Amino acid sequence: MKSQLICIGDELLLGDTVNTHASWLGQFLAQAGAPLARVHTIADRQEVIKQTIRQAMEEADLVITTGGLGPTHDDITKEAVASLFGASMVLHQPTLDFIKEQFIKKKIPFSSSNYYQAKVPENCEVLFNSNGTAPGMWFHKNNCFLAVLPGIGHEMKALMRQKVLPKLSENGGIPSKMYSRYIQTAGIGESTLSDEVIGPLDSFLSENLHVAYLPSPKGTTIRISSLAESEKQAKEQSRALVAFIKKQGSNVIIGEGKHYSLGKAVGDLLVVRKATLAVAESCTGGALASTITDIPGSSAYFLGGITAYSNQMKQQQLGVEAQTLKKVGAVSKAVALKMAQQVAVHTGANIGLSTTGIAGPGGGSPQKPVGTVWIGFWSKDRHFCLKAFFAHNRLRHKERTTAVALEVVRRTLLNIETMPYGLKPHTN
Amino acid sequence: MKSQLICIGDELLLGDTVNTHASWLGQFLAQAGAPLARVHTIADRQEVIKQTIRQAMEEADLVITTGGLGPTHDDITKEAVASLFGASMVLHQPTLDFIKEQFIKKKIPFSSSNYYQAKVPENCEVLFNSNGTAPGMWFHKNNCFLAVLPGIGHEMKALMRQKVLPKLSENGGIPSKMYSRYIQTAGIGESTLSDEVIGPLDSFLSENLHVAYLPSPKGTTIRISSLAESEKQAKEQSRALVAFIKKQGSNVIIGEGKHYSLGKAVGDLLVVRKATLAVAESCTGGALASTITDIPGSSAYFLGGITAYSNQMKQQQLGVEAQTLKKVGAVSKAVALKMAQQVAVHTGANIGLSTTGIAGPGGGSPQKPVGTVWIGFWSKDRHFCLKAFFAHNRLRHKERTTAVALEVVRRTLLNIETMPYGLKPHTN
Repeated sequence: MKSQLICIGDELLLGDTVNTHASWLGQFLAQAGAPLARVHTIADRQEVIKQTIRQAMEEADLVITTGGLGPTHDDITKEAVASLFGASMVLHQPTLDFIKEQFIKKKIPFSSSNYYQAKVPENCEVLFNSNGTAPGMWFHKNNCFLAVLPGIGHEMKALMRQKVLPKLSENGGIPSKMYSRYIQTAGIGESTLSDEVIGPLDSFLSENLHVAYLPSPKGTTIRISSLAESEKQAKEQSRALVAFIKKQGSNVIIGEGKHYSLGKAVGDLLVVRKATLAVAESCTGGALASTITDIPGSSAYFLGGITAYSNQMKQQQLGVEAQTLKKVGAVSKAVALKMAQQVAVHTGANIGLSTTGIAGPGGGSPQKPVGTVWIGFWSKDRHFCLKAFFAHNRLRHKERTTAVALEVVRRTLLNIETMPYGLKPHTN
Repeated sequence: MKSQLICIGDELLLGDTVNTHASWLGQFLAQAGAPLARVHTIADRQEVIKQTIRQAMEEADLVITTGGLGPTHDDITKEAVASLFGASMVLHQPTLDFIKEQFIKKKIPFSSSNYYQAKVPENCEVLFNSNGTAPGMWFHKNNCFLAVLPGIGHEMKALMRQKVLPKLSENGGIPSKMYSRYIQTAGIGESTLSDEVIGPLDSFLSENLHVAYLPSPKGTTIRISSLAESEKQAKEQSRALVAFIKKQGSNVIIGEGKHYSLGKAVGDLLVVRKATLAVAESCTGGALASTITDIPGSSAYFLGGITAYSNQMKQQQLGVEAQTLKKVGAVSKAVALKMAQQVAVHTGANIGLSTTGIAGPGGGSPQKPVGTVWIGFWSKDRHFCLKAFFAHNRLRHKERTTAVALEVVRRTLLNIETMPYGLKPHTN
């Protein structure tokens, strides 16, 4: 079953509202076996609404519209649909009774525009909306279902769960199930990952089995999506592909799950090893600690951090010597190592992790351009530094440095020799 | 000039990615006088891409596509466009040189898929992308412009600003001007702001002059948008409304500009006062320091921070007494005050700011439920604490606590008596 979504509202086209309905419905419909093939975002104009619904109903088995059902002058979806089907409007008494009751409860005067809310095209089946004043509507024409839903998020979602989903099932309209897996990687570029680590996948892929590489500054997600008649079949269909990807990518895969993060991967490892971590930050300025503490339960292994933004603080809190700062500067191997070691020693953590670099836009020099960064790792058994060069943009620099620092911990704990992005460890 | 946007990518239809590009481009194009009339979100399928571009180019003066220009097998927009125009692919040498240079700099091996990134359809004009490896492309056919842009946000945005906008101007396509102002507020809820502080605005508003309240965990943005034939007229049209809002909201307005942030507001004040700041964090876990250091030039006033996640670290690094922890617990007025004072004293900062609370999901109790937080402020002249209760969600708790802590500094520096959300200061 193929579906299309039509989001109606000028506020979406003007960019005042981010279209989160589309992503929510995208997930919901994929799981319900009616994945979205297309989303149309259109204006509050009757002719445009009619033409778009007509075209979508020719192409899809299910069409959903959201928005334009409110009581104000720019809400014209209902008229457009009635006009499209040549249907006249009739009063839906249960809806009118419900609306009146709500107004009495809230002591709000009942107006004629509220009365109009209870009218629907004669050829629809009402999807009773117990969360608001605009009823949803269900149409069936030329082998296509049309659900007309309000644009208010919680009303639309409740109607999808309580009314539309049962309708799809009762009409036997759920022939296919989408099964997706999300494999998270870190410390590797999208193209190196696909070309050199994972390699060609064509022999696995088909019309119903897809792979996508989704890059972000934190790492690249590999999404495998499989479509089949049952979830079991869809799962089975993807099994060999998933196994192949996991084998090829073993060193760079940090874990599985749509929201599985590097912070969680490192945390999970530290818990198993009963090890603790502390951080000393300069260029990441608290972002490393904050990423670690985003994970619930991080207090079990994260002792804390020192953000030594000033040189004075590097000296006083982290024992970096004035002479070292003068000789090699704050952005240096010696300072990164010292910071990592001292924060571990001061806090009693098993692992000390440090960052010192030039996030920009100011502070660069020909020898140390904006983007230069040293990451230090210290434990009783092993200590080393990595020099890297990340993005000119300040926020992206912080984010990338944070991700690489965490990936250094993960790879070191797992004795993986290759460091993120093939960076070389310096040991003194 | 009417425009249409085509967003390409299975991840958008599956709901893995929220389509923030559409809202960004919606705003950008409205301001550039080429408002979006329609957004199509479609799959990575060549026939669908071709058919959608063909149809959009028949209806619009400008068509923009985003996505599908990466180096992996699911990136097929370029092929689809070449096929649509019957164009063959040619190498764009400056792009190839640029990509190679980037790979050498970052010491990443250059692969064949990266080479392919530098190929473009022969009938396009290249929109040189200095932020990534996929060039943008510009086509002109049958009185319609087509801009093919990468899906990575900062690359797409830079190309829109630096390449597409000048092209639109040189082609005389900007008939009306949108003038927008963004007034940023903090420490107040959206409805209190609109109902009690700003008050009714109907007498100012018209078809071409709008106000929107846009809430986020950091604060509420008041957006004023004015549409007229020239920027000067649009500006003039909004003048009285802006002045009224600024007068009404003087205490809660932190500054102006779409991206003006609380971190910047506090930073600007500290620079003027020649004052310095240090932070001691528990529940915000580095997020407060990171928000401060997101601002370029923050090293001028931010000395650093101590994230004392463990009680041991609170004792060792911030002189909190074991007895205090035992008696009143880490989430208490006494500990918040001590943390703020000690971090100021240790670092020599004029102002010490602290947070200690229960971000959850674990760690709550009937006396101190998840969400409880104490914020401490210390300077030579004044010290106090605020007790608050923010969101059960861990990440939102961190974000909200961070914002309120910064707003406490701003209001204190400006001698504004009312604290954020009307919280009451405790002085000992």
